[in-house]
Amino acid sequence: MISSDQKFHTLGEFFRRFGGKLIGNPDTRITRVATLENAGPGSIAFLANERYRHQLQATRAAAVIVGEDASELTGLPRIVCPDPYAYFARVSSLLNPLCPTQAGRQPTAVIDASAVVASDAEVGALVVIGKNTVVGARSRIGAGCVIGRDVVLGEDVVLHPNVTVYDGSVVGSRVILHSGVVIGADGFGYAISDERWLKVPQIGRAVIGDDVEIGANTTVDRGAIEDTVIEEGVKLDNQIQIAHNVRIGAHTAIAACVGIAGSTKIGRYCRIGGMSGITGHLTIADRVEISAHTLITKSIEKPGAYTGVYPFNTNREWRTNAAQLRHLGELAARVRALEQMLKKQNGRKS
Amino acid sequence: MISSDQKFHTLGEFFRRFGGKLIGNPDTRITRVATLENAGPGSIAFLANERYRHQLQATRAAAVIVGEDASELTGLPRIVCPDPYAYFARVSSLLNPLCPTQAGRQPTAVIDASAVVASDAEVGALVVIGKNTVVGARSRIGAGCVIGRDVVLGEDVVLHPNVTVYDGSVVGSRVILHSGVVIGADGFGYAISDERWLKVPQIGRAVIGDDVEIGANTTVDRGAIEDTVIEEGVKLDNQIQIAHNVRIGAHTAIAACVGIAGSTKIGRYCRIGGMSGITGHLTIADRVEISAHTLITKSIEKPGAYTGVYPFNTNREWRTNAAQLRHLGELAARVRALEQMLKKQNGRKS
Amino acid sequence: MISSDQKFHTLGEFFRRFGGKLIGNPDTRITRVATLENAGPGSIAFLANERYRHQLQATRAAAVIVGEDASELTGLPRIVCPDPYAYFARVSSLLNPLCPTQAGRQPTAVIDASAVVASDAEVGALVVIGKNTVVGARSRIGAGCVIGRDVVLGEDVVLHPNVTVYDGSVVGSRVILHSGVVIGADGFGYAISDERWLKVPQIGRAVIGDDVEIGANTTVDRGAIEDTVIEEGVKLDNQIQIAHNVRIGAHTAIAACVGIAGSTKIGRYCRIGGMSGITGHLTIADRVEISAHTLITKSIEKPGAYTGVYPFNTNREWRTNAAQLRHLGELAARVRALEQMLKKQNGRKS
Repeated sequence: MISSDQKFHTLGEFFRRFGGKLIGNPDTRITRVATLENAGPGSIAFLANERYRHQLQATRAAAVIVGEDASELTGLPRIVCPDPYAYFARVSSLLNPLCPTQAGRQPTAVIDASAVVASDAEVGALVVIGKNTVVGARSRIGAGCVIGRDVVLGEDVVLHPNVTVYDGSVVGSRVILHSGVVIGADGFGYAISDERWLKVPQIGRAVIGDDVEIGANTTVDRGAIEDTVIEEGVKLDNQIQIAHNVRIGAHTAIAACVGIAGSTKIGRYCRIGGMSGITGHLTIADRVEISAHTLITKSIEKPGAYTGVYPFNTNREWRTNAAQLRHLGELAARVRALEQMLKKQNGRKS
Repeated sequence: MISSDQKFHTLGEFFRRFGGKLIGNPDTRITRVATLENAGPGSIAFLANERYRHQLQATRAAAVIVGEDASELTGLPRIVCPDPYAYFARVSSLLNPLCPTQAGRQPTAVIDASAVVASDAEVGALVVIGKNTVVGARSRIGAGCVIGRDVVLGEDVVLHPNVTVYDGSVVGSRVILHSGVVIGADGFGYAISDERWLKVPQIGRAVIGDDVEIGANTTVDRGAIEDTVIEEGVKLDNQIQIAHNVRIGAHTAIAACVGIAGSTKIGRYCRIGGMSGITGHLTIADRVEISAHTLITKSIEKPGAYTGVYPFNTNREWRTNAAQLRHLGELAARVRALEQMLKKQNGRKS
Repeated sequence: MISSDQKFHTLGEFFRRFGGKLIGNPDTRITRVATLENAGPGSIAFLANERYRHQLQATRAAAVIVGEDASELTGLPRIVCPDPYAYFARVSSLLNPLCPTQAGRQPTAVIDASAVVASDAEVGALVVIGKNTVVGARSRIGAGCVIGRDVVLGEDVVLHPNVTVYDGSVVGSRVILHSGVVIGADGFGYAISDERWLKVPQIGRAVIGDDVEIGANTTVDRGAIEDTVIEEGVKLDNQIQIAHNVRIGAHTAIAACVGIAGSTKIGRYCRIGGMSGITGHLTIADRVEISAHTLITKSIEKPGAYTGVYPFNTNREWRTNAAQLRHLGELAARVRALEQMLKKQNGRKS
């Protein structure tokens, strides 16, 4: 959905819109963004990561966005600002606007007569929209999406193709759902009785706040009794699993392949690394950072960084160390025995 | 697919249908289930977890379901029974029946002329059903599902929207498949030859037993030569990967994001925690429990609980400990050396 | 898509096509492949894994494929060759040819007028193909796939049902994409500004080389600025996540549920075990093997095998050992103290 006819902008225009300090010709024409390494004429690049600092000299960009400390490392026309990456995000959004919404319904869409779809919403080919569902202004529903009954989609929502939203779900405004996302499937709830699993009806909803983005093939289950809630501004990467009755606090960002088990509450402004997991019924404080591939098994009350990763090694060295790991309790006991023996010896001597 | 017009039931009716001991007014009217914490008039709640015991006093539920030990902690009308959660599951199923199947085929469904679809089955909008496929009585196929050729779907099956079933798969009766599920895709089978991968045709089937439920975006591959089999009553959560030629024993329950590698056989009544993995060609006994985020690398012959989780810590403490982990073999050798030195000393002394 | 009318072939035909040494009647008729254990009349089986050697005696196969070392263990008609599994792959491909492509477009497909679809390509029911997209000769697009605009699909591509390809993606020839695959969704790129996440437009492409196969529900994100690249011959299993700007070298094979974080470059001929992860901005050499469930957190410069798995145990023994793991730094310090104490003692004595 990126528009292809990019017009040019000038460095001066960026300066007027987004601030910073402009050094060099304000009429410098910019048509696209690029990396320092591969930039060419007409492109603007940025330096936000020390590791690419050496590329600043050789870049063929027309202009660059840099921090104060790198300002004198280049003679190119440039914007100097406190956060070059955020500045770049704004410039890139200006240079790469979304295609405008094509208001209207594709004739192959199957929309229930009771659904209320804004006249300026865009409904793609072969979309299905169920009874009593509401689609807000300027929202766009990609081809092949299936939206159940009694769903509410806010304004300026973007559903990429082949998204599924179950009955009764609520999706806030400016939400982006990528392909393969499933919102509101049943949570994993069973009682055991006479060695058979009884399904517990999952009657809560999945409620997605404003300004949430959810990556491809991520699943957010509906609540068992009450709702599963993703608060505003949360960003979820691909292939994440959010179980029933989880609540994710506002502006938390979660990397790919994470699993959050049922009824766990996660704070605001957390950052959770890829492939990590959080077991059920826990509470995680605000501003907690969790490393990749870490399993959190207890509630966390204090902000800070938490890790539980087995350090990798060559297979050969790992074998040596892992073998010991199975005897760690024993090793500790042996050390304790040595300490006591020495203490006794020393006692005898004194 | 939850019906919206809930009629009321009485506590006496629950007692007559499901047993237990009824204390209080049998005419107490119940219209919905709720949690103890958020229950209001007309709702029935349950206590099955010690952690919520303190909520029993303050609940505003009309009635509660409790165990014998909590019976005297409340004056509310109540059902006393040995397993409040299973009782609750039955009550909730009564209060929240599925919408009845809407027999018939949506006009936008594309059904091969040779397919045999029961007259009382429900085929949603934009469904595709291939050659010679059979859909059993009262089954419902959600919008956007694609069912290949030569597939057999049993009776009372529910396919939520956007499920894919490959050619030749077999799905038992009363199976529930959630959105994004893929049944019968090719297993990961290649032979290497002259530094190129040769694809090995995957000609087995995926066979799903009766009463299985499979969560959103879970994948069950077809067999390489023989079949992949999910036995009756198995419950799979979301985003699980079942490789070719796996067999999962009856009534086993697997939490989200688990991966089971090829040709592994899992017993009956196992419980496998989220994000855990089992490598290929293993055999796991009946009634094995595996913790979350654990990798099983050897066959397990005895029932019991198995775990392999790196305990998380603050990043700072983890760094200290993990650094040692890389030298664990060395540390053990040093302890051994100390023991020998002391033994020698003591030998000399005696 | 496996053809059902299998004609018979003879052992002599395999010999003429694929070489090896033929022992026994070359007119032995073969109609299908089977495992040693379950083979019956007309079937050919193979022995490639020591663990199944004992099955060779009892097999009821009509013929077998074996290595030189097992040649004398059976009296059956047989092919003797250096790599029985690769030979078997060729035989099975001959016996199980794909159904021929059904050239043409299903009437329910929604194909933009500007798309260029080869006349001998097969476009399934309810497929959507966007503006300016090109579909190469003999490619087949399964039912329910959504292909965006400006996409290029090569020749002899197979898209199974319900695949999604975002705008601008490039897919090479002979690529196979399984159901639920999402190619080209936005990478996870945000800048933080005033405690709000700013989306960074993801304007690179996802580029998939020739002869790649991608398993069900795997996701390959588009690049942030430049492209995400999967080189030729790569094999990806199910539910893998490839983040933006990753490059995967030719002929690398990755098992299910792996996550590769942004901008990481992986070499050629690597083999990556299931459920493992690689963090961002790393470089992995050619011919690296990574064990299942391992997190790689640093670049790897040398070929070889790398592992970082916590060994599982009974839950009881795990508790004992894991408790010590939290005090490993302390344990090492205690050993150091003991060593110094003994050194001092010994110093005093001498």
